[in-house]
Amino acid sequence: MRIEALCTGDELLTGVTTDTNSTWFQEQLLAHGEQVARTTVVGDVREEILEALRTLSARADVVLVSGGLGPTADDLTAEVAAEAAGVPLVLHPGALEQLRERFARRGLTVTENNIKQVKVPEGAEVVLNPAGSAPMFVLRLGKAVLFFLPGVPREYRALVDAAVLPRIDALRAERGETGFRALRLLKTVFLAESHLDARVRPLFAAHPRVTFGFRTHFPENHLKLLAAGRTAEEAREALEAADAAARPLLGDHLFAVDGETMASVVGRQLLARRETVALAESCTGGRIGDMLTGSAGASAYFLGSAVTYANDLKESWVGVAHETLVVNGAVSEPVAREMARGARASAASTWALSVTGIAGPDGGSAEKPVGTVFIGLEGPEGAEVRAHRFHGDREQIRTASAYAALDWLRLSTRGTAS
Amino acid sequence: MRIEALCTGDELLTGVTTDTNSTWFQEQLLAHGEQVARTTVVGDVREEILEALRTLSARADVVLVSGGLGPTADDLTAEVAAEAAGVPLVLHPGALEQLRERFARRGLTVTENNIKQVKVPEGAEVVLNPAGSAPMFVLRLGKAVLFFLPGVPREYRALVDAAVLPRIDALRAERGETGFRALRLLKTVFLAESHLDARVRPLFAAHPRVTFGFRTHFPENHLKLLAAGRTAEEAREALEAADAAARPLLGDHLFAVDGETMASVVGRQLLARRETVALAESCTGGRIGDMLTGSAGASAYFLGSAVTYANDLKESWVGVAHETLVVNGAVSEPVAREMARGARASAASTWALSVTGIAGPDGGSAEKPVGTVFIGLEGPEGAEVRAHRFHGDREQIRTASAYAALDWLRLSTRGTAS
Repeated sequence: MRIEALCTGDELLTGVTTDTNSTWFQEQLLAHGEQVARTTVVGDVREEILEALRTLSARADVVLVSGGLGPTADDLTAEVAAEAAGVPLVLHPGALEQLRERFARRGLTVTENNIKQVKVPEGAEVVLNPAGSAPMFVLRLGKAVLFFLPGVPREYRALVDAAVLPRIDALRAERGETGFRALRLLKTVFLAESHLDARVRPLFAAHPRVTFGFRTHFPENHLKLLAAGRTAEEAREALEAADAAARPLLGDHLFAVDGETMASVVGRQLLARRETVALAESCTGGRIGDMLTGSAGASAYFLGSAVTYANDLKESWVGVAHETLVVNGAVSEPVAREMARGARASAASTWALSVTGIAGPDGGSAEKPVGTVFIGLEGPEGAEVRAHRFHGDREQIRTASAYAALDWLRLSTRGTAS
Repeated sequence: MRIEALCTGDELLTGVTTDTNSTWFQEQLLAHGEQVARTTVVGDVREEILEALRTLSARADVVLVSGGLGPTADDLTAEVAAEAAGVPLVLHPGALEQLRERFARRGLTVTENNIKQVKVPEGAEVVLNPAGSAPMFVLRLGKAVLFFLPGVPREYRALVDAAVLPRIDALRAERGETGFRALRLLKTVFLAESHLDARVRPLFAAHPRVTFGFRTHFPENHLKLLAAGRTAEEAREALEAADAAARPLLGDHLFAVDGETMASVVGRQLLARRETVALAESCTGGRIGDMLTGSAGASAYFLGSAVTYANDLKESWVGVAHETLVVNGAVSEPVAREMARGARASAASTWALSVTGIAGPDGGSAEKPVGTVFIGLEGPEGAEVRAHRFHGDREQIRTASAYAALDWLRLSTRGTAS
């Protein structure tokens, strides 16, 4: 089955909006055994949309059209879809009723612009939008089934889940499609893409059902395993075999699988050990605390972070000695050590991480160039400080510092507590 | 001039990578008076790439092709480009030389796979890649000029800047293209898109040279003004007129223009007033500190943040009274007030912001539902606490809390210090 996506909207062609709906849809679709063959992005231009609708519906079995269902003059999709199908636009009573209720609940009156949103090509199947005014509609053009969806991510995703994917499953069943896929992401950190590639390349020949892909998301590099099979079980077995062969090659760089993140893995491990962590951050500015508290329930293991950007606060919040700062400078091994010790002592945590470094672009010296970062870890068995020299811009140095700190804690908290 | 983009790579169709190169390129292009007419995304499939190259080069004047120039077997672009042009692939001596030098510097030897990266279609113009192994090349197919670029963002951007945009300028000059555009983003916060739309809609008719666009990036909503003119000056004047008419309609919701961010505006204002800020964060977990320290030179105005997730740390780091916590609970007006007071006192800062709230999904109650957030601000003229009730998921509540806090400080530090 050939599935194509058509995204409409000037904002997708003028640098205003990055299309994240497509990424999300593609992921969902893989789990349903299908893959997008092509994505086309056009602006709010009548002729472009019409040409694309005609070309895509002549070539594909399913076309997912998104955007252009809003209330404003540049929202053209329903109109152009009607033109392509050679039918008029008609008001959908159910969608109008829903719109009136939504607006009444908020004390607003329905305007002519809003009424435009509930007009669909005659004969189209309509699916009400649980999260917005414009309904989704389904049209047949030639041999293709076209799904028309609002571009607002929340509405798009709700409708794809509720009404598009089940219809794609049904189409597959009708057509007797038997191909299945299974996908896994193995996430590594601090392993260059070329090295990752070199490590797993020897596996390619022995796993013909599996496509090996790579993705860089600094400082993470992901190995993507996409397995194909005639049955779901066959795809799953091929995936597990490749996974089992790949893991030993990734070693300690492998930190997470699929939807897990560095912070969620650290949190899960701490929770399992009933241990806690506190932080003393300087150049990361609170980033590590923000990462850890992104997970629900973080209060079970995350106690706090002293973001001591100013030296005085390194003294007052985490008890770094004034002399240590004066003698060594804020970016130094002894200060990192005292920051970790102070954070752990004041929070009474199992672990404490500290980070002090020079993120740049200014503030470097010959002795301590931009990218110099000291990370401290104090735990039940003592304290250690590691000196790093990260490369890149300010954002990259801050990101690498946060990852290096969390990764160290991850490796220190694997398995059960000692 | 019609410009189209062709992005290749399975990772762009399987939910693995979101295409951010296109967004960036589109923005650059606007400043050069042009706009992308269509973007097409295909996988690493020989027939798809070939068909797209043929279709696009028959329709467009300029085609920007990205991806598929890597060393691996699924990197097909150079090969398919040669096929489309009806020429063989040939080794480029200059690119090979550069590759050998790059590898030698790192102590690596050049493999057969790498050599593949320096083969280009015969007759193509080659531009060496300052940041990677695969050079860019330029081909003519029919009436179209095709630029072939690596997909790695750092390499892509360096080559677009150095070699694509200047060639597009030259093509415009050759063709006597005289259209110019000017773009401005007016960024608002806590103003719903439908309200923003309603406020500025009355301006549309009086500014025919300007296209008004909207973009949502929670909790920001941006008004995009895109002006067109026969000369650069005409476009600029139309832009300034629309800008001057729009600003009064946005009021205090307007917080930044173009590349500025909430944090950079707050930082700029504090710097101008020679004032400083300290934070006491709870549910934001360090997010506000992270935002403020994203700007270079933040140490001039940002002193630190006490991320006091655990109640004990609210006491020890920022001196919240034990009784205040016991009597009112951590998420309360009195605790927010004492957190701000304690942060300001311990950091000796001009201002202190505090945030304590329930980000969810658990921890809410009938009296204090998920989304209840107290924000405190203490400054030279006293302290105040505001109670908020934010909606959405954990991430949205945390983001809205961080923005609300910074926005309050922004509005309190406009103009010169009192």
